[in-house]
Amino acid sequence: MAHALVLGRRGQGRCWPNPAVGCVIVRDGRVVGRGWTQPGGRPHAETQALARAGAAARSATAYVTLEPCAHHGQTPPCAEALIAAGVARVVVAVEDDDPRVAGRGLAMLRAAGIAVETGVLAQEAARDHAGFFLKTGAGRPFVTLKLATTLDGRIATATGESQWITGPGARREVHALRARHDAVMVGGGTARADDPALTVRGLGIRHQPLRIVVSRKLDLPLTGQLAQTAGDVPVWLCHGPDADPGLCEAWEGLGARLVSCRLAGRQVDMRDALHGLGAAGLTRVFCEGGGQLAASLLAAGLVDELICFTAGMALGAEGQPAIGALGVERLAEAPRLALAEVRPVGADVMSVWRRV
Amino acid sequence: MAHALVLGRRGQGRCWPNPAVGCVIVRDGRVVGRGWTQPGGRPHAETQALARAGAAARSATAYVTLEPCAHHGQTPPCAEALIAAGVARVVVAVEDDDPRVAGRGLAMLRAAGIAVETGVLAQEAARDHAGFFLKTGAGRPFVTLKLATTLDGRIATATGESQWITGPGARREVHALRARHDAVMVGGGTARADDPALTVRGLGIRHQPLRIVVSRKLDLPLTGQLAQTAGDVPVWLCHGPDADPGLCEAWEGLGARLVSCRLAGRQVDMRDALHGLGAAGLTRVFCEGGGQLAASLLAAGLVDELICFTAGMALGAEGQPAIGALGVERLAEAPRLALAEVRPVGADVMSVWRRV
Repeated sequence: MAHALVLGRRGQGRCWPNPAVGCVIVRDGRVVGRGWTQPGGRPHAETQALARAGAAARSATAYVTLEPCAHHGQTPPCAEALIAAGVARVVVAVEDDDPRVAGRGLAMLRAAGIAVETGVLAQEAARDHAGFFLKTGAGRPFVTLKLATTLDGRIATATGESQWITGPGARREVHALRARHDAVMVGGGTARADDPALTVRGLGIRHQPLRIVVSRKLDLPLTGQLAQTAGDVPVWLCHGPDADPGLCEAWEGLGARLVSCRLAGRQVDMRDALHGLGAAGLTRVFCEGGGQLAASLLAAGLVDELICFTAGMALGAEGQPAIGALGVERLAEAPRLALAEVRPVGADVMSVWRRV
Repeated sequence: MAHALVLGRRGQGRCWPNPAVGCVIVRDGRVVGRGWTQPGGRPHAETQALARAGAAARSATAYVTLEPCAHHGQTPPCAEALIAAGVARVVVAVEDDDPRVAGRGLAMLRAAGIAVETGVLAQEAARDHAGFFLKTGAGRPFVTLKLATTLDGRIATATGESQWITGPGARREVHALRARHDAVMVGGGTARADDPALTVRGLGIRHQPLRIVVSRKLDLPLTGQLAQTAGDVPVWLCHGPDADPGLCEAWEGLGARLVSCRLAGRQVDMRDALHGLGAAGLTRVFCEGGGQLAASLLAAGLVDELICFTAGMALGAEGQPAIGALGVERLAEAPRLALAEVRPVGADVMSVWRRV
């Protein structure tokens, strides 16, 4: 199952709106088939693994990281395919909470006389599929917030200089993280200040997550990197109801997709924005700031995972804060996250914190 | 030698102005004597270890973390004691750069026919003795700066609430760190806001580092914890030339020792303050903030080691910054430190950064 989980992760960032599943078929102690959900979400992992296994799948055990689907969608149900291939046993990490599946895949297998086990490495699998489950359940994607800061939590000098606070090792990790998400998201301030491309570079990876900018008024440079490349790698813009119609048209003309959102105070309501993105099929969003967007997400309790890269440098109180105003008056009100992992990355520290 | 280093560290924080040395005497593969510099700096480690070894020191090897002293101070020179005891070989981690020793200890041993080796675990020993070397060379103590912050580098809410950001594990580490320093230092703002005791508690440790407050005007509460306990555990006050003479007298009346310092801008000149503390014999100072004092030390390049405890919590831009204004306009001007160690401590992250 650990192998199936690793295979499944290959699909992360590439198979939304479908879950990134991994499947390993084992017969007589030998791996006879491996598969993972393919780009775009089809074929499914089981289909791939069964095709590799061929006749060897008969009487074999299939390890699948998510309950096989039971409904006729754009592909025939995987539960049927496993039955047809004659597997003797199916081991599942977690059940699917998609209402179209929800236990029915397992029931189909059992009805066909196949031995079924569930809950193997369930916690790891639940984490890998968290974006899919959130989209299905809460109607929004999983949100990873990345911060790259100095020791004192600053992301730029007072004059806006930010390249580079963290080193090349940390930046490479960021590109790898981008590739494992469906979309990379920044706030309008960052888009204006840094003119970022938000693409995956330097890793030999060809697929690109789409790029999202959250900007209430769409007051973004129409000649920047995002605007110029919107035809190559999708750009989605989450804007408020009061965005200038001319700017909306201009961005649509460049090929961008507009997601109109409600306001929460003077900012785009991030809960609404994420629901819009979830409805559009996104399961995993990687937010790279800036401070105001990070604060909006944290204040609304919408950060599922926070990844901090910390450099051995201080910028002092004049530096730009990684997290904008939160309106927190008491420690008891502060957003809290639990440490999941910490390690050095090059000269920097990478720490991973998760929703409590 | 590794064992001798561990023994030597037992004296850290307790034997200033002398170095905290460790000594192990080995004969025929057996440890026959162990010693470390005793509280107050005497007896020296070698004297202790030779006393334990007795006649077994003859023809033995002595491992010493610092070159044995060669001058008649308040104790006879250790080099003479090693010769008198008849040891055959002395292994030294680092040479002493005290001008009264500086190679003369080694020369005395060699002249007596003793085999001498140096440079064994020299880097570790140089780190352990860094405070003593700095005092002797640069005339100031080693400075460890501790920060206990949220993920976004804040040490308190806008309203000043700071207890507790980090958890009990981190706070226990802080008490252990205090015990290994000669003095604990805070700025006047922290002394006013938190009314701290700055003592070592909860570890079964009886000795206490002295307490230092840096306060230009000495406008500190005369009824706070520090004032009330100044007769039990020493309180030293680094103040500016314009401190109110009445306050100076009041604090002296409470038993505090005053260290008059020059100003750098509107703050106490920390270079001058540390020279005053070095002249008074201090070798290791543990600074616990607040933001303004941390900034003064960092801006002046006076932080030798920075220890960050980071909690999984965010306070946002309104929170009080761990490091005050540094006057840094470009990334190239920012104070930089190199990562030495990072690990989880309870629910928090502890990272150690050293002077580059």
